[in-house]
Amino acid sequence: MKRIKITIAYDGTKFCGWQIQPGVRTVQNELEKAISRITGAPVRVYGSGRTDSGVHALGQVVHFTLPESRAEVPWQRALNAIMPDDVTVLDVAYVDESFHAQFSSIRKTYVYTLWLENKFLFPCRRNYVWGCGPLDIDALDTAMKYFLGEHDFASFQNVGTPVKNTIRTILEFVRLPGENEHEIKLQVCGTGFLKQMVRNMVGCLVDIGRGKAEPGFVRSVLEAKDRTLAPATAPPQGLCLSHVYYGEPKSGGPESGRNESRIDGTD
Amino acid sequence: MKRIKITIAYDGTKFCGWQIQPGVRTVQNELEKAISRITGAPVRVYGSGRTDSGVHALGQVVHFTLPESRAEVPWQRALNAIMPDDVTVLDVAYVDESFHAQFSSIRKTYVYTLWLENKFLFPCRRNYVWGCGPLDIDALDTAMKYFLGEHDFASFQNVGTPVKNTIRTILEFVRLPGENEHEIKLQVCGTGFLKQMVRNMVGCLVDIGRGKAEPGFVRSVLEAKDRTLAPATAPPQGLCLSHVYYGEPKSGGPESGRNESRIDGTD
Repeated sequence: MKRIKITIAYDGTKFCGWQIQPGVRTVQNELEKAISRITGAPVRVYGSGRTDSGVHALGQVVHFTLPESRAEVPWQRALNAIMPDDVTVLDVAYVDESFHAQFSSIRKTYVYTLWLENKFLFPCRRNYVWGCGPLDIDALDTAMKYFLGEHDFASFQNVGTPVKNTIRTILEFVRLPGENEHEIKLQVCGTGFLKQMVRNMVGCLVDIGRGKAEPGFVRSVLEAKDRTLAPATAPPQGLCLSHVYYGEPKSGGPESGRNESRIDGTD
Repeated sequence: MKRIKITIAYDGTKFCGWQIQPGVRTVQNELEKAISRITGAPVRVYGSGRTDSGVHALGQVVHFTLPESRAEVPWQRALNAIMPDDVTVLDVAYVDESFHAQFSSIRKTYVYTLWLENKFLFPCRRNYVWGCGPLDIDALDTAMKYFLGEHDFASFQNVGTPVKNTIRTILEFVRLPGENEHEIKLQVCGTGFLKQMVRNMVGCLVDIGRGKAEPGFVRSVLEAKDRTLAPATAPPQGLCLSHVYYGEPKSGGPESGRNESRIDGTD
């Protein structure tokens, strides 16, 4: 058997998220359909994590496994020729069978784009930003720092599907310039994210940026460990899964990279 | 009567261009419908020029005239509240009745975005770029300069609807960085443009960038004054009407600005 790792980008606007669900259009389904069409046999693909309906990706990582006889295909060209134009293969690699798109990942980076003008929103940006209006940028910068490090993120997980272990580590949370003068980007890198955690963190930051709370509010919400205390979830279209990182096997042994991982396969 | 000048942006993807046509969705029609809904009476709006189906705008200028009693409306807020999200009002001004969005304009700037990678195209950029693949950038830079100045652009006008006076002046043609490492932007400013002239110039430049012709080919095509000799028209989705300029009345009299205009109301 041969394992294939592909890196893909997609525009989440017209997808009901990553994961296969009956009766709706999902990225996983489009990908499996295209691979099956090429090989002539059903296939299962595994993503680094799910993304919600409307969430975009510029570096989602996926793996699948095929018999040697079917694996030697110019995958990038073949898939991009038949897939719809809202999903594309950026890169392909043959990897060791121990590689798993979800379980081998050690870090992920998401970028959330905010539109700060409230009188208008450029139409060409409407599917890629949250038009939240003016924010106090200094307050935002201060508040982001409270997320850094290891915390119990119980207050920032999705209400519907709580997980047991809600401790995660945020390695980076920075503000970057946007694609025009009306936007800013918030880039967050962590060892793993609970379901809707990024959108919940951004929802909280925007409340602070709007002056509804002080930057220290982040700490209070983290300490409360109660989702009902946190502000509303930011809308999906501002979010983009930017990069998934995989570790080199370390001197501590081939498993050490994997132990760093706390990915739940969610966004 | 009161004349109102509005600056609008639109995503051309789902519009059949600017101009009202029966049975299809156009920007002019959406705007007239929205204004009429606010004032309760039919209205005609005049744009600085038409844009084709799929062409975008970040600075289209439009004017319309209303009886004083109906003109005092918070236009930006009112229109943006009821118009679809692929068109937005960026700015509003009450202007002198001598102002005309088309005939008073003295210069226009268009930006055309090229995607230079041929193995993939970011899905979120698919409606805003021409995925032309790799180009010789030096050749492109050299070729652009041949368009500068006053020329007969007969070779670069649309085949179907030729106009008599095909002499136009290009004031600027420069390459700018794109929104990511796979894109470049070509910005062209001129006193006026023939129908599809920008897309025809870009089609010619891309042929040169692909090595199908030398940069001096631009001069040969200009001199031939024959549309059939020029390369194919670039696709619409890479094009954006960026800015329309209006002159201050000059010392030579209020008409002098207007005399500079050679806008045909086309793109």
